[in-house]
Amino acid sequence: MYVIIVYDIKVERVNKVKSFLRQHLFWIQNSVFEGEVSRSEFQKIKNGLLDIIDEEEDSIIIYPFEFFSEVERTVLGVEKSPIDEIL
Amino acid sequence: MYVIIVYDIKVERVNKVKSFLRQHLFWIQNSVFEGEVSRSEFQKIKNGLLDIIDEEEDSIIIYPFEFFSEVERTVLGVEKSPIDEIL
Repeated sequence: MYVIIVYDIKVERVNKVKSFLRQHLFWIQNSVFEGEVSRSEFQKIKNGLLDIIDEEEDSIIIYPFEFFSEVERTVLGVEKSPIDEIL
Repeated sequence: MYVIIVYDIKVERVNKVKSFLRQHLFWIQNSVFEGEVSRSEFQKIKNGLLDIIDEEEDSIIIYPFEFFSEVERTVLGVEKSPIDEIL
């Protein structure tokens, strides 16, 4: 499956979230990660994030898709991490 | 169609981008907007953003989908703007 994750995390925890996500996904933009993951890895990511974040202060939105091909992307301005070249 | 827009904009232009996007879409999280738009509105949004941003410094990623139903969403932590209640 393919996931897009966007987060809004308090500064004291944001680096922990970033380095955790970097182990599983590609950094795409300031607070956006994307990547292909297995269902069990997806579960691991969700549990790992819940261990790090404060659920009353932080917010993470996960958009899961069955296939990478379902996700189109238009970039305006700087393409910080050109995912199409990575995949 | 349905769009998710995530942005990373230099501080001097970010409020302009936010208020522009607020005219067309729903604010979902720190730097994420979503919403149902017509194709012509989608074009208008892209052109409007290009008028505001500095293409060498700012970055906007647009994920377009044919239908809202293609987009699932899992929220961890605070659900800042519960889109399902809005739509």
